[in-house]
Amino acid sequence: MDQRETTRLLRQVAAGEIGVDHAVQLLRQAPFADLGFAKLDLHRGLRQGISEVVYGAGKTSEQIQKITAALLDAGQRTVLVTRLDAAAAGELRTTVEPEVSFEYFSDAHIAVVGLIPEPDGIGRVVVATGGTSDQPIAEEAAITAQALGNEVVRVYDVGVAGLHRLLAHTDDIMGASVIIALAGMEGALASVIAGLADCPVIAVPTSVGYGAAYEGLAALLSMLNSCASGVSVVNIDNGYGAGYLASMINHVGAAK
Amino acid sequence: MDQRETTRLLRQVAAGEIGVDHAVQLLRQAPFADLGFAKLDLHRGLRQGISEVVYGAGKTSEQIQKITAALLDAGQRTVLVTRLDAAAAGELRTTVEPEVSFEYFSDAHIAVVGLIPEPDGIGRVVVATGGTSDQPIAEEAAITAQALGNEVVRVYDVGVAGLHRLLAHTDDIMGASVIIALAGMEGALASVIAGLADCPVIAVPTSVGYGAAYEGLAALLSMLNSCASGVSVVNIDNGYGAGYLASMINHVGAAK
Amino acid sequence: MDQRETTRLLRQVAAGEIGVDHAVQLLRQAPFADLGFAKLDLHRGLRQGISEVVYGAGKTSEQIQKITAALLDAGQRTVLVTRLDAAAAGELRTTVEPEVSFEYFSDAHIAVVGLIPEPDGIGRVVVATGGTSDQPIAEEAAITAQALGNEVVRVYDVGVAGLHRLLAHTDDIMGASVIIALAGMEGALASVIAGLADCPVIAVPTSVGYGAAYEGLAALLSMLNSCASGVSVVNIDNGYGAGYLASMINHVGAAK
Amino acid sequence: MDQRETTRLLRQVAAGEIGVDHAVQLLRQAPFADLGFAKLDLHRGLRQGISEVVYGAGKTSEQIQKITAALLDAGQRTVLVTRLDAAAAGELRTTVEPEVSFEYFSDAHIAVVGLIPEPDGIGRVVVATGGTSDQPIAEEAAITAQALGNEVVRVYDVGVAGLHRLLAHTDDIMGASVIIALAGMEGALASVIAGLADCPVIAVPTSVGYGAAYEGLAALLSMLNSCASGVSVVNIDNGYGAGYLASMINHVGAAK
Amino acid sequence: MDQRETTRLLRQVAAGEIGVDHAVQLLRQAPFADLGFAKLDLHRGLRQGISEVVYGAGKTSEQIQKITAALLDAGQRTVLVTRLDAAAAGELRTTVEPEVSFEYFSDAHIAVVGLIPEPDGIGRVVVATGGTSDQPIAEEAAITAQALGNEVVRVYDVGVAGLHRLLAHTDDIMGASVIIALAGMEGALASVIAGLADCPVIAVPTSVGYGAAYEGLAALLSMLNSCASGVSVVNIDNGYGAGYLASMINHVGAAK
Amino acid sequence: MDQRETTRLLRQVAAGEIGVDHAVQLLRQAPFADLGFAKLDLHRGLRQGISEVVYGAGKTSEQIQKITAALLDAGQRTVLVTRLDAAAAGELRTTVEPEVSFEYFSDAHIAVVGLIPEPDGIGRVVVATGGTSDQPIAEEAAITAQALGNEVVRVYDVGVAGLHRLLAHTDDIMGASVIIALAGMEGALASVIAGLADCPVIAVPTSVGYGAAYEGLAALLSMLNSCASGVSVVNIDNGYGAGYLASMINHVGAAK
Amino acid sequence: MDQRETTRLLRQVAAGEIGVDHAVQLLRQAPFADLGFAKLDLHRGLRQGISEVVYGAGKTSEQIQKITAALLDAGQRTVLVTRLDAAAAGELRTTVEPEVSFEYFSDAHIAVVGLIPEPDGIGRVVVATGGTSDQPIAEEAAITAQALGNEVVRVYDVGVAGLHRLLAHTDDIMGASVIIALAGMEGALASVIAGLADCPVIAVPTSVGYGAAYEGLAALLSMLNSCASGVSVVNIDNGYGAGYLASMINHVGAAK
Amino acid sequence: MDQRETTRLLRQVAAGEIGVDHAVQLLRQAPFADLGFAKLDLHRGLRQGISEVVYGAGKTSEQIQKITAALLDAGQRTVLVTRLDAAAAGELRTTVEPEVSFEYFSDAHIAVVGLIPEPDGIGRVVVATGGTSDQPIAEEAAITAQALGNEVVRVYDVGVAGLHRLLAHTDDIMGASVIIALAGMEGALASVIAGLADCPVIAVPTSVGYGAAYEGLAALLSMLNSCASGVSVVNIDNGYGAGYLASMINHVGAAK
Repeated sequence: MDQRETTRLLRQVAAGEIGVDHAVQLLRQAPFADLGFAKLDLHRGLRQGISEVVYGAGKTSEQIQKITAALLDAGQRTVLVTRLDAAAAGELRTTVEPEVSFEYFSDAHIAVVGLIPEPDGIGRVVVATGGTSDQPIAEEAAITAQALGNEVVRVYDVGVAGLHRLLAHTDDIMGASVIIALAGMEGALASVIAGLADCPVIAVPTSVGYGAAYEGLAALLSMLNSCASGVSVVNIDNGYGAGYLASMINHVGAAK
Repeated sequence: MDQRETTRLLRQVAAGEIGVDHAVQLLRQAPFADLGFAKLDLHRGLRQGISEVVYGAGKTSEQIQKITAALLDAGQRTVLVTRLDAAAAGELRTTVEPEVSFEYFSDAHIAVVGLIPEPDGIGRVVVATGGTSDQPIAEEAAITAQALGNEVVRVYDVGVAGLHRLLAHTDDIMGASVIIALAGMEGALASVIAGLADCPVIAVPTSVGYGAAYEGLAALLSMLNSCASGVSVVNIDNGYGAGYLASMINHVGAAK
Repeated sequence: MDQRETTRLLRQVAAGEIGVDHAVQLLRQAPFADLGFAKLDLHRGLRQGISEVVYGAGKTSEQIQKITAALLDAGQRTVLVTRLDAAAAGELRTTVEPEVSFEYFSDAHIAVVGLIPEPDGIGRVVVATGGTSDQPIAEEAAITAQALGNEVVRVYDVGVAGLHRLLAHTDDIMGASVIIALAGMEGALASVIAGLADCPVIAVPTSVGYGAAYEGLAALLSMLNSCASGVSVVNIDNGYGAGYLASMINHVGAAK
Repeated sequence: MDQRETTRLLRQVAAGEIGVDHAVQLLRQAPFADLGFAKLDLHRGLRQGISEVVYGAGKTSEQIQKITAALLDAGQRTVLVTRLDAAAAGELRTTVEPEVSFEYFSDAHIAVVGLIPEPDGIGRVVVATGGTSDQPIAEEAAITAQALGNEVVRVYDVGVAGLHRLLAHTDDIMGASVIIALAGMEGALASVIAGLADCPVIAVPTSVGYGAAYEGLAALLSMLNSCASGVSVVNIDNGYGAGYLASMINHVGAAK
Repeated sequence: MDQRETTRLLRQVAAGEIGVDHAVQLLRQAPFADLGFAKLDLHRGLRQGISEVVYGAGKTSEQIQKITAALLDAGQRTVLVTRLDAAAAGELRTTVEPEVSFEYFSDAHIAVVGLIPEPDGIGRVVVATGGTSDQPIAEEAAITAQALGNEVVRVYDVGVAGLHRLLAHTDDIMGASVIIALAGMEGALASVIAGLADCPVIAVPTSVGYGAAYEGLAALLSMLNSCASGVSVVNIDNGYGAGYLASMINHVGAAK
Repeated sequence: MDQRETTRLLRQVAAGEIGVDHAVQLLRQAPFADLGFAKLDLHRGLRQGISEVVYGAGKTSEQIQKITAALLDAGQRTVLVTRLDAAAAGELRTTVEPEVSFEYFSDAHIAVVGLIPEPDGIGRVVVATGGTSDQPIAEEAAITAQALGNEVVRVYDVGVAGLHRLLAHTDDIMGASVIIALAGMEGALASVIAGLADCPVIAVPTSVGYGAAYEGLAALLSMLNSCASGVSVVNIDNGYGAGYLASMINHVGAAK
Repeated sequence: MDQRETTRLLRQVAAGEIGVDHAVQLLRQAPFADLGFAKLDLHRGLRQGISEVVYGAGKTSEQIQKITAALLDAGQRTVLVTRLDAAAAGELRTTVEPEVSFEYFSDAHIAVVGLIPEPDGIGRVVVATGGTSDQPIAEEAAITAQALGNEVVRVYDVGVAGLHRLLAHTDDIMGASVIIALAGMEGALASVIAGLADCPVIAVPTSVGYGAAYEGLAALLSMLNSCASGVSVVNIDNGYGAGYLASMINHVGAAK
Repeated sequence: MDQRETTRLLRQVAAGEIGVDHAVQLLRQAPFADLGFAKLDLHRGLRQGISEVVYGAGKTSEQIQKITAALLDAGQRTVLVTRLDAAAAGELRTTVEPEVSFEYFSDAHIAVVGLIPEPDGIGRVVVATGGTSDQPIAEEAAITAQALGNEVVRVYDVGVAGLHRLLAHTDDIMGASVIIALAGMEGALASVIAGLADCPVIAVPTSVGYGAAYEGLAALLSMLNSCASGVSVVNIDNGYGAGYLASMINHVGAAK
């Protein structure tokens, strides 16, 4: 029950159209969402242009189809489905009405149902990777950020073992509004980029590597201990989370 | 050698006042900083109003005094010295000229030499803690953010074991531009706040707790696995890093 | 050899029907169970209405069938078989006589052979989960508790990232006799529920999550460090153990 | 704002004594505490007869004195101060009015200000330890349980290396309402006791041991993996938490 | 070159049948084994009656066949092949000459080629397990010990959760010469047995369990921290190593 | 209640001197110790010639004195007090009667009160260390073994970095009945010795080392994974446990 | 932009052929690669005789073929493709022109396209393994070193459990220029070899082992804590890295 | 017993001056050291010009003095004493004869007794650090390398957060014969330097940092997973080991 509905209810009480006891019961039963929390969600939907996100991993193809349909019915202009394999994406596509746009990004394992909005963030989101194996997680971050209304610049395969590759992109890095730095193995990319950049850096450790990489632990610890300021870290392989946060940062100020 | 100096040098070359070979040598000897990197630092200084930071831990009192003096001589309007104990702060104060403002925040273990700038960020930075033991790290974050030009709202001791304490601050949380959430033990605060908030949340695990808290590891893992979107994590007890990053986010858009 | 049998033996000795040496030998050979330990087991069976539990994992289909048959032959009214896959359940069903009730709960991977007793606990057992992926373990806990004579209330998918979902169930939580809180990822649910509730909370970390969730370790540490009082923890994914313990707690006072 | 207050407000709206807009604002501003959460705390206080707990670790002597005084002023009949060293206890004693009872348990590091209530639980709480080094944590658990209204039976130094010591207490164990089992090193005590007992067992790993005991980690893992049913675990050295939970379990049914 | 061969060589030198330079060269070329190390191996073979061991894991079926043949050719009366699956065992059997005894123990995954010697140890080796899932590793230990000339008593499924099962075997435990205690999960069996027994206990943590059992780590740490004296530990699931060591201990004194 | 007493009781029942109900009660109350367990302890004392051990760590000087006096009063001919610092040893000495032998081994931190028995084991116990820093733990092992009736040969500072130092002691190693191998850092000594020896090797990881030695963890893991047969491991720095176990092994066969 | 180009630019400025502002912009845009970094790579290629390396893991067969072709087109005389399975190797072979030499080393999982250069290092590279299971990683190291121009001596299966096997190769070890020591399980080989050798030892922990070997962690820690001087460590199973580094060391002095 | 002595013995046998049995016994007793191992040590001393190293940690001042004197008496021209505090160094100085050179490097905690030899390595050893806190370990490495006959170039405080500081030293890095890279926190320096350099890089993780740096673990894992070729790693804070290994590499080719 949002403010408008609460006001209407109270007007009905004031007008005697509804009894006090009944009103008390209605207020009590109103989910907490009505007291402000659900508004958050609506607010987000409005601001971000229409995107809502479905986490596909661990859900059946049918569940994904139903949730997507429900969101579209509820008026969502764009629905993002992450961690979706190609087969489930193919099935999902057949359940979407023809007039609704549908695109599946196989690298990112993301389907975007509906239109990707025009970028309306403050600046550009740079997505940088240490090696080609980091690309699937990087694309998850990049497509997420794009689908939430951000211009994205990809700077891939610029690991610190060949510093000139990274330095050749100095302009991109210095011109970014927020940077997502993904790396496995020793995860040094985040520190080096943060030393060059002048904006927040979201570090994403990836599970790329073997042996003492410990499925991303080495990169995670490395990134948490970055000697450069302005770095924060998300979970191993959490491309979606990085893309979402980057969009949030790139819309700070526009958010209220 | 920054752009202005490079321009002047080239003008001298164009005017024949300086030989080509000599100019080549000057350009070569110019530290790499002159090719763009140092400009970053100057840029930061300019944008952030004057603040430069000295990490006091592991430095002698004399070293801190010399670095501070050098920064002030170089024209810095404000110098932040972190992880500074009271004794070293007292000694530092005596070496600063009387007309320079000096304030020591004992909870935060930070000295601010020079004036704290007026807040010029997009919105407010909320600093929230789970318990009273998190306060020193929280103050490190808060004073850092203030000294970098941010309005800070403190929401302390709102751990999830008494949810009403947190919910009483819903307005602060929903009105924030960026939130720093500090917690030890199980570190659940970051997830709960991120579920309520509509802005980036910087999670700071603290080493508060005992036994299986493992000096902040439990909180660190908890925060990295937050089921809420928009959360990223810095190192255990890294209040300064959180404050610095919060300021960066709160100035995105103003940064270029 | 229980107290009744011991008494009978001694009467035979007193009556000279049995020699002293023979009696000494009988007493010595009596398994320790006869000295009280086996009585425990019988006591449990009696009190809990007849349920005995077979842990199905790592047992062959034939082993499970034989044990179940033996327990039923021994007079057990209800046999619970946990961690049982659908195929083995199907085979087990065919070996049970038609007049014996048989139900397989596929989510919980539990078969109940015989009748589920009427609830006779002190109050209700609430089973709460953070997300839908926790459901199989939650059902293992719930069916176990039901089969041991407890009324169970399910409060699923109330993770702390959307606090209003949890708060909408405040009445269930405050009215519980004992609560089982299951969560993966950061495991914050247990702390938040324990802050709201007024009864013992059994926390079950689940292996839901990825990366730094470390197969339930993050949730485990989080739950062990709960800042709320009244929380204790069982092994990762140990739904059965939580259900069993919840039943014990819900029958305290009725137990002797 | 609770149900009664909400009803009164709505009556004022119905009666036209208060405008709709004003009422909407009041409903919005009502702290969440008014929706039932703060009542929880009062409820606890009432039920438990009067005990409120102050965690002394990390608080100054002055802070402890002020909090204790405030709680007594608020009508608490008994205040429990845990993790309190002898010096701070001595200072606290001098600030308590002479007519208020004061007792300091030096082994447990707990001060009880006010009267310890008569036991009103369902049965007895047994506190068992593996060795003499576990005693301080055991006393923390025992005194906590006593101060919350429980009869406590101490069964100390019954480690599994000398099984006869434990078996000599079979009656205590079988007659308990709830058992707290504390052990360091290999932590086997909890499993052995749970195999003997017929009631919930709260396992407390202690940091007793050296080398690969890893400050309680070995005992913690051992207890989490207990092959006996009915065992749950609290944090390493968390005697208070075990005592509090034991009291909760021993009052289940009496709780509402 | 063993002592006998060295003696013969020196006699030839003394007799002038072989030149000094040639003898020096022969002594230098003699593999280090000839200087004592190989004698160890022969000594072992002699004492242990004939057994030599082939570790089958990671070897191809052909490699195993060749090594076995070579050992038999070299005069070994018995060859033990461990970690051998049924298929490879079947193939190995076909390559062994009909007059050579061949037995494959499928639980233990061990083939014994040649005759198992008569027990000639000091006493009996007791092999005890906590649960039925530990049986394969227990059989690996038991068959190894038998094949090395020991009488073995199996005491299976005597986990501490039902102490009476273990206590019923007190005579076996107290009469053992050496005990191998295998357990997964919390691994408490080793401590309890060592508390009862009067002989060396070799603890074998098994990878039985789930969640925080961490593939045997919980049992390993538990066993390393046993509060009972006389316990030592081998690697997780190392049944062969335990059986070999038990045989060594059971032949101490007979060894020289 | 042992067999003799049980027989007497039954005779009284048979003779009508005692009622059946009373006899049942007596049999139920008989402590488990009477069923054989306490005899174990006596058996040990008799066999080992008189040694009983007091673990001094964590006990006050007074506690140690009282326990020692009680043991001597109970007829123990020798009492071993381990982990005893020099000051407490000095105080203990003053409380022992002049006619009782007293020796304090400062390296081993062990006091022996009473006479060290003549060696009566099967062979010699060799105690070998990797470096001089392992010596205190090695002495704890050596003195323990001596005090329990074993001839001990010390082979110190024979770490594998200088293999010739170890090989110079080949005779000692090959002639041992049981070997205790202590090493910190990489702990390779145990494997190398077990490869040379023909008897059980008890590996003791020590906490010697720094950095990635992790207080003995590196040596512990190394020793658990020894590629040589016949090695088992005790807790880090557990010299006493190794000495005790070595004595047990060196008395196998003599033990019953 | 290198020195020659910078000189030319400045000459143009001096000559007025290019404006100052334009020149400033050109200097700013000069990619860092122009400052020498790319030249590094060329330098390497020249010195090492022609070898370039493609890491095959995680690349598609097509990607590998394209990269290899591109490198050959660019004039590389030899291309090394590591972590390549037999199927992909077969496909790669078909895409290489007949006149180009092609060899696939199935043990090492390496294909060498082009000619392996004549050895031109300072001395010999010895590759030693503890057991036969280490051989694939050892071959990866050996083939890498050979393909980079080194003479390689293989000393396989010389684990420390049979020291004589290793000592029989003393001449190889003492005559090496650099040694690669590979071992799983307890990893003691590196220390023992370094104690014998007089040259750098590169230790490679392998994931051979089970249980507490923890996929190479035990060997890794063991090797990092080697008590012998001259040992350094690479990642678990990193045969390629060891071979590459060994070649570097074996060409020191020849490198400039 | 070396070749010459063996020849003499055999001649005596041939001449009948010594009996066969006696000769066999002498050959058996010949310490392995006589077979070449001790010669290794002498070889090292000769080649390295005279340096022998005493590890001072854990040794008493007297022990250090005696060992140093013995080495000088044995003809060592230079003795290096590492991990020596200033007090012990002062005492050591007083025991060295006046004509022997003595220098104490307080940053490195190393005393050099005797003359530091002239550099005779192939090229220069570069020692680089990430921050000023790494300096003590860096100096340990640098002084060790100098004392073993190497020219050392120090490149300190060039952490990757300010890449221009490192790039300003490109000439030093590219001209090195071997580089020691020390860094704490995220340890990225080793990877970045190895990407720039053309020679072996010895990475030394330092325990600099806090929180999730875990006393050097983060840097250690980072360095082990370096994406650049040519990097190997020594133990945390092991400056001496890095300096020693660097000297070995810088003398490869000169070594035989």
